[in-house]
Amino acid sequence: MSAPNYSSLGFTAILVSLDGPVLVVVMNRAKQRNSWTGAVPEELQQVFTLADKDDRVKVVILTAEHTAPAYCAGADLSGGWDALWAPEEEKEGPHAHRDTGGKTSLVIYRCRKITIAAVNGHAAGVGCTAMQLPHDFRFVWAGAKLTFPFVRRGIVPEATSSYLLPRLIGQSRANSLLLTGATFTADSPIVATLYHKILPTREEVFPAALAFAKELAATTSQVSVAVAKGLIQHPGDSAEENHLYDSRAMRALGGTADGQEGIRSFIEKREPKFTGTLSRDLGSWFPWWREVNTKHRNAKL
Amino acid sequence: MSAPNYSSLGFTAILVSLDGPVLVVVMNRAKQRNSWTGAVPEELQQVFTLADKDDRVKVVILTAEHTAPAYCAGADLSGGWDALWAPEEEKEGPHAHRDTGGKTSLVIYRCRKITIAAVNGHAAGVGCTAMQLPHDFRFVWAGAKLTFPFVRRGIVPEATSSYLLPRLIGQSRANSLLLTGATFTADSPIVATLYHKILPTREEVFPAALAFAKELAATTSQVSVAVAKGLIQHPGDSAEENHLYDSRAMRALGGTADGQEGIRSFIEKREPKFTGTLSRDLGSWFPWWREVNTKHRNAKL
Amino acid sequence: MSAPNYSSLGFTAILVSLDGPVLVVVMNRAKQRNSWTGAVPEELQQVFTLADKDDRVKVVILTAEHTAPAYCAGADLSGGWDALWAPEEEKEGPHAHRDTGGKTSLVIYRCRKITIAAVNGHAAGVGCTAMQLPHDFRFVWAGAKLTFPFVRRGIVPEATSSYLLPRLIGQSRANSLLLTGATFTADSPIVATLYHKILPTREEVFPAALAFAKELAATTSQVSVAVAKGLIQHPGDSAEENHLYDSRAMRALGGTADGQEGIRSFIEKREPKFTGTLSRDLGSWFPWWREVNTKHRNAKL
Repeated sequence: MSAPNYSSLGFTAILVSLDGPVLVVVMNRAKQRNSWTGAVPEELQQVFTLADKDDRVKVVILTAEHTAPAYCAGADLSGGWDALWAPEEEKEGPHAHRDTGGKTSLVIYRCRKITIAAVNGHAAGVGCTAMQLPHDFRFVWAGAKLTFPFVRRGIVPEATSSYLLPRLIGQSRANSLLLTGATFTADSPIVATLYHKILPTREEVFPAALAFAKELAATTSQVSVAVAKGLIQHPGDSAEENHLYDSRAMRALGGTADGQEGIRSFIEKREPKFTGTLSRDLGSWFPWWREVNTKHRNAKL
Repeated sequence: MSAPNYSSLGFTAILVSLDGPVLVVVMNRAKQRNSWTGAVPEELQQVFTLADKDDRVKVVILTAEHTAPAYCAGADLSGGWDALWAPEEEKEGPHAHRDTGGKTSLVIYRCRKITIAAVNGHAAGVGCTAMQLPHDFRFVWAGAKLTFPFVRRGIVPEATSSYLLPRLIGQSRANSLLLTGATFTADSPIVATLYHKILPTREEVFPAALAFAKELAATTSQVSVAVAKGLIQHPGDSAEENHLYDSRAMRALGGTADGQEGIRSFIEKREPKFTGTLSRDLGSWFPWWREVNTKHRNAKL
Repeated sequence: MSAPNYSSLGFTAILVSLDGPVLVVVMNRAKQRNSWTGAVPEELQQVFTLADKDDRVKVVILTAEHTAPAYCAGADLSGGWDALWAPEEEKEGPHAHRDTGGKTSLVIYRCRKITIAAVNGHAAGVGCTAMQLPHDFRFVWAGAKLTFPFVRRGIVPEATSSYLLPRLIGQSRANSLLLTGATFTADSPIVATLYHKILPTREEVFPAALAFAKELAATTSQVSVAVAKGLIQHPGDSAEENHLYDSRAMRALGGTADGQEGIRSFIEKREPKFTGTLSRDLGSWFPWWREVNTKHRNAKL
């Protein structure tokens, strides 16, 4: 179990603080409309990787100051696309390129803790993709302007959005967002089903997300959440295959400290008090899926 | 063609009656809030297996008395989790466990007749999973409280719910239900798309489902329904593969008695009168998919 | 780059005209309720194949006269099912049958340009499947009666509808449409999410679709759209695999004329003017997926 001091890690693009079991990550580039430079994805990948391993953390919230001009205006493209290519990858050729938004999406999507995007301002590009789609829950301001502008910029939907968005809300709505590049407000029927909760004002978004995070942290088992996320993301190719996975998980978790507390509290008609941790209670059968290796040949990590 | 007398099969946990082509299954544990003990899944698996093979049955409705305290309050856990593990499986080890909810879900999902859950009361746990998700249609009382409580009990979403729910309503809504363990009423936008029809009162749910069942029984072909269910559940991995399957099915069904009656009634501008049965009219090309074997090594059946 | 003169191709079942970058295809069998005879799918397959290759075309709209009795009343079945089977296929046996609706769906689904169905009247059967589902966007009249009648005709949902519909709007809604054969109006919650826009009158549908088409043609890159469609339709089996595909696409498109114009126009804060074409700018890495061969053994094409 690693227990980093998040305030001493030297982050500059984000502000990170631990509020009990809730790790709060705030974009720290309000003057630049919270656009992405190289430091943003690096620090986001770092903090979600740490949160995944830090047993104290049960929920991570990503948000911005509600007074900022935007939740995230997308990538900082003042230097052109070249800012997106990495010299190390370019040596190998274009096939070695790995999209920075996608690397960040994968780290967030794989994080075994509950992840929440509290979208309290406008969002465009990577502000709609990596900053929202790989999270388990999205809270949003009803008036937030949301844009997936890629086909209007001569490029393509990135950050694994073409995989995540159709799965989250269906291909009909995903087409409307990804193939038009148009702007929708969060309360439009085109995009509303993406959100767990839509709030009328910007300032209400983060408090609502934080209250939700604290309730989930207080009531849910860290181990249950990790395995449930695994089951949802890797359900198997059929109901039968899924039955094998959820059966294995049920039997294993029934025997953990959290499983025992879950049933005791149920019988005693009281709230459960879960103490299980991923570092101690996840058996060797987790994960049950194999991941495609996405590293390019000369990648250091 | 087997034609069991459903009233003489000795069911105790459920009441079963044949209303013309509609088999009505009513939970018979109202005093216990229709919670599951061992007999419930066994009898449900038995009755849906029979219905699948009984040519007289075109639709199965699963429901409860609308005056019962709940449609189904979940598993009876008064004996702890141990009630869920089977001695035979335990001898082999935890990998041999097969979730009882999942076994029931698979039998219902594979049933080739139309299946309807008439949810005329509150539902929790397996009352939301196996008792609802594997059915083709769900009717519900608007005020029904629905809970998938697993992550608040130290276990995981079971009964193949992590496979079925994202497919039915998308992963965004599935996360909201499965990763929170929170309670939603049926008319909440989080869960409403799961339901074919939402009724204002408890007493209206079953009559609405029964009228719908009778209309489908009167107007649809048993063979068409079975193959259409197969196509929806096993569409293939691409539009191209699906084209091969639905072409095969179209050509085969066009030549059956129901296919002939379908076109004759269309040309003669009258209602069709389908007489086709699964035991007679399903060709050897059905099913076209292979199922993962979910039995554990020493399973008797 | 082929540049056919669409008005001299001898189409009879459809009327085709090029309005700048928008190819407009109008059903030409109003008196027959725009039902399908053999010529309809042949001409639709021909025109969408041409549009796919014609660099001038950025968007295709399929529609009907709004004064016609229907957008499309389904297949013309006055000659019975036999009208659907092809003599060449029958020689090989029933396994060689390839559904005409499905062949048409595949050509439309694979078309690399934006495709829009402007459903300005009632639709049934193939009028709901091939004439709607494989398109990127659907515009519809709120009062349009929509029917997938297959299970009421002794046959099955065709034209790859059992693959497309659950992906577009989820299996819960797809069941409601495909397993009942019932009629819903377009504004019903059962079917509404299938549509990008629902218009109050029949006469508003095509103008709304045309304005949308022209806006997309003016603002989006033809190359970006083609690759984005590929990513949505063939996202890979995991977020990781998708990351490899969208990374490759990002790096490749960043170097194209449209990619360069996209970033220049962004920096110069002006609208982009894309000139890229599929015949020139799609690299050899496209497509990245393999297609199942759907031809029967003796097929000529």
